[in-house]
Amino acid sequence: MKITMYTMSVDLFANSLGNLSAVLDKGLAYATTRKFEPVVLLASRLAPDMLPLTRQVQIACDIAKNSVARLAAQEPRRFEDNETSFEQLRARIAATIDYIKSIPASALEGSEDRDIKVPAGERTLEFKGLQYLQTWAIPNVLFHVTTAYDILRHNGVELGKRDFIAGGRAP
Amino acid sequence: MKITMYTMSVDLFANSLGNLSAVLDKGLAYATTRKFEPVVLLASRLAPDMLPLTRQVQIACDIAKNSVARLAAQEPRRFEDNETSFEQLRARIAATIDYIKSIPASALEGSEDRDIKVPAGERTLEFKGLQYLQTWAIPNVLFHVTTAYDILRHNGVELGKRDFIAGGRAP
Repeated sequence: MKITMYTMSVDLFANSLGNLSAVLDKGLAYATTRKFEPVVLLASRLAPDMLPLTRQVQIACDIAKNSVARLAAQEPRRFEDNETSFEQLRARIAATIDYIKSIPASALEGSEDRDIKVPAGERTLEFKGLQYLQTWAIPNVLFHVTTAYDILRHNGVELGKRDFIAGGRAP
Repeated sequence: MKITMYTMSVDLFANSLGNLSAVLDKGLAYATTRKFEPVVLLASRLAPDMLPLTRQVQIACDIAKNSVARLAAQEPRRFEDNETSFEQLRARIAATIDYIKSIPASALEGSEDRDIKVPAGERTLEFKGLQYLQTWAIPNVLFHVTTAYDILRHNGVELGKRDFIAGGRAP
């Protein structure tokens, strides 16, 4: 099997987002067991000027879908940011995984050298496809997946590295 | 330029660890400005049973060096875990980057199909090289780099995504 832009974007993101979904499930179970409103966790942050859990999940999904679409030279599908529950966030993740998997591997062939433009406020960042995947897309998706995990862990949810790496299954 | 096991391990890890070094520098500057002992940050955790900042940095370095060495079918160089200051942690990162860059790209050619064994307590995890990079090495390194960032951010250090993604430079 050869390493490709597809395996390191679609497969990697689908795997990490799937694990995030399992991590969220443990967050919801914790709120249920401890009898507090799950929205407390969804609104939690690690610092007052950091984004809360809900936004971390939405952004992880957005960067994954936008990255794969841009590498495939397609207009990214838009999702509304209207989730207000763990169930809805898990549905958002599932829809994101379905979407990135719907892009055929052939669309990413040769995307190493594709010119990628990323809107960033008033600026536009410019990358070649490989550099984009390596220095922007992968670190960014994993930043938000990890921070979502860290927010739950900081709030007492019983999680371990196995949940992050393999959704709680033996890796 | 073609995507390779080398670009997605050595280059990706060197980039992320370099950014982590810049993030640590901001942590040290914050302690200095606010006149508290930097070791307070080094011993900080997001949960009582999570590892402190020093260990997050050491483990990020270890997983990066072990992963590249295993993919190259080499015995990983060992580092002592004896850092007690920000300066020493930044030196550890620099030595790790030098080490992984010392492994020639040719040693990773064809490593997609290499059998990789990872000691994990009493078990041994087994992967093929590509799956190892995609589902273990990259998520793991970025987990610890992100958690180091999150610990500092949680303690009030002024950091933004640009620090994580590009060491504070414009990406």
